[in-house]
Amino acid sequence: MMVLEVLNLGLKLNILGNKKDYVCKFASCYGYEDIDKFLDESDIITFEFEQGNEDAMIATFDMGKLYPNYKSVWLKIERDREKEFLASKGLPVPRFKIAENGSEALKIIKDEFNGTAVVKRTKGGYDGKGQIYIKNNNFIDQLKTINDRLVIEEFVDFDYECSVIVVRGARDFFNYPVSFNYNREGILIYNYGKLEDKGEVKIAKDLTKYLDYRGTMGVEFFIKDGKVMINEFSPRVHNSGHYTLNSSFTSQFENHLRAISNMSLGSTETLNFFGMVNILGKTDVQSELLKYGTVYWYGKENSNPRRKVGHINIIGSSIEDVKTKIDSLISQLYPDNLESIRII
Amino acid sequence: MMVLEVLNLGLKLNILGNKKDYVCKFASCYGYEDIDKFLDESDIITFEFEQGNEDAMIATFDMGKLYPNYKSVWLKIERDREKEFLASKGLPVPRFKIAENGSEALKIIKDEFNGTAVVKRTKGGYDGKGQIYIKNNNFIDQLKTINDRLVIEEFVDFDYECSVIVVRGARDFFNYPVSFNYNREGILIYNYGKLEDKGEVKIAKDLTKYLDYRGTMGVEFFIKDGKVMINEFSPRVHNSGHYTLNSSFTSQFENHLRAISNMSLGSTETLNFFGMVNILGKTDVQSELLKYGTVYWYGKENSNPRRKVGHINIIGSSIEDVKTKIDSLISQLYPDNLESIRII
Repeated sequence: MMVLEVLNLGLKLNILGNKKDYVCKFASCYGYEDIDKFLDESDIITFEFEQGNEDAMIATFDMGKLYPNYKSVWLKIERDREKEFLASKGLPVPRFKIAENGSEALKIIKDEFNGTAVVKRTKGGYDGKGQIYIKNNNFIDQLKTINDRLVIEEFVDFDYECSVIVVRGARDFFNYPVSFNYNREGILIYNYGKLEDKGEVKIAKDLTKYLDYRGTMGVEFFIKDGKVMINEFSPRVHNSGHYTLNSSFTSQFENHLRAISNMSLGSTETLNFFGMVNILGKTDVQSELLKYGTVYWYGKENSNPRRKVGHINIIGSSIEDVKTKIDSLISQLYPDNLESIRII
Repeated sequence: MMVLEVLNLGLKLNILGNKKDYVCKFASCYGYEDIDKFLDESDIITFEFEQGNEDAMIATFDMGKLYPNYKSVWLKIERDREKEFLASKGLPVPRFKIAENGSEALKIIKDEFNGTAVVKRTKGGYDGKGQIYIKNNNFIDQLKTINDRLVIEEFVDFDYECSVIVVRGARDFFNYPVSFNYNREGILIYNYGKLEDKGEVKIAKDLTKYLDYRGTMGVEFFIKDGKVMINEFSPRVHNSGHYTLNSSFTSQFENHLRAISNMSLGSTETLNFFGMVNILGKTDVQSELLKYGTVYWYGKENSNPRRKVGHINIIGSSIEDVKTKIDSLISQLYPDNLESIRII
């Protein structure tokens, strides 16, 4: 989705990675063996996913060409770094502790979390991977065998999850509206808006300032009894901001490119009632679904039922209308698994 | 602008025309000598400009592949056909007469229009070409020498000009909001919205029905003392609908492709306060302008000061805010010619 925006803005595109990629039709593609040439021939370098090739990230940052900066990436490589950073800046996060291994984690869970907590591996965590919910002494044997650093976090029985997409440019800071997010086992199933801002925008703005950030960022929150806590941030365009492709004056993708290219940002003005439903692990959808909104396919070869292969952007005349449409879409996309992902 | 939407929708693009065109990077391009191959290898054929190669249009229509249909194109080839058609369907148009040549026109202007009228050549009329405003016996000598058919139309001292972009698909009819249009010597300088619908949408809807139309259409109107009259229609995406690229859930370009490809149409929900300023005959603009909105360059080599080479889409918090921004943009784009195009 960023590729089309690059073309639209009239920028030249170089891509480091798989040279057989579809987008190489529109771009100059470089394999990792040509990284020096790639770095030399590119003025500004960004990424779609922060858990990419770390050496390439560092080399790019050292040349002063990486946006967002390496600090923002570094914090995401190991989850404890992110937690410690957020806490050190006084930003609200669920209570957490760091354990050096599984045995230490067990002791902390018993002593300091009364036996109930969420344990997260520090590395490789995205889309709900590497997390377990501990209660009633479950998973004790598995946990004991882990010899890596772990984050132990209080289990937040949140009222709801939400996120905000923000963009920080050379001179501007803009935000899109807050969206309600429905995640299932760590994967976003759908989101909609706009929600009332309960302080999320200010928190996200502060975070971008502390990081001297440039680009689009997604910040995810838990809301519990009116209290806002950061779940995590993503130093890139974010799945919960895909609705901006249709509902906003400027999409999160275009604004990311504007921010890192030293352009003025485009307006983030957004229609009041928007929504997005992810398409997971399908090879096609019924044409019936096309009437609900705009379908985006990522051109991925499907590999597993949890893989995001596309999404559908929708619009409605009210929040209730948007929710009704989401419910219809979910029923049709996931007929066998309705209970688990139906709107409640 | 249609090309990027074609790619976005995952359609394959064949282009008939100049094989050296920039877009041939993303499309299969055919010269006119290869028209048979082009027709054979394309399922659905459309156009950006109705005054194109007439033989190609007819051949395409005969194969059942042309959208919008040839009737819509045919009416636009000679202006009297359009006027007669609209009048025959009872659609509101300014009073007009047809003259077979300049001498007859002069007589009609004197006898039936009290010496004041707008005279339009029937062929080659777009962007204000081929029109003159007759009053106080001006242009008499020039008019006498014309040996072609002419349309003589009452001069409408309109309160304002506006337009509406509509889309008719296989099963749906959708409209975008009505926009205020400021034309100067027949060329759109800027537009903004949304305006109250004074019946324009219904008229445009009827017109698409009478034409058995498929695709996006722009319909331009004069408003005088609350009365709505069609100035002309364009059987294609329209300059006054460029704002939809940023302000609407689905752009006029995507919806045109959806309509002609038998897809369901995308929502035309639009932000309340939008605007667009055309860039005429410039080779560049000050980067200062970027802060007002999204700049689109068409990649044309500049040839004359009235040529449309790009546009700027803007947004505001109110109609007044949009108008203020338009005024700033006009001042900066056309500093030497402010009087002629400043908002009054």
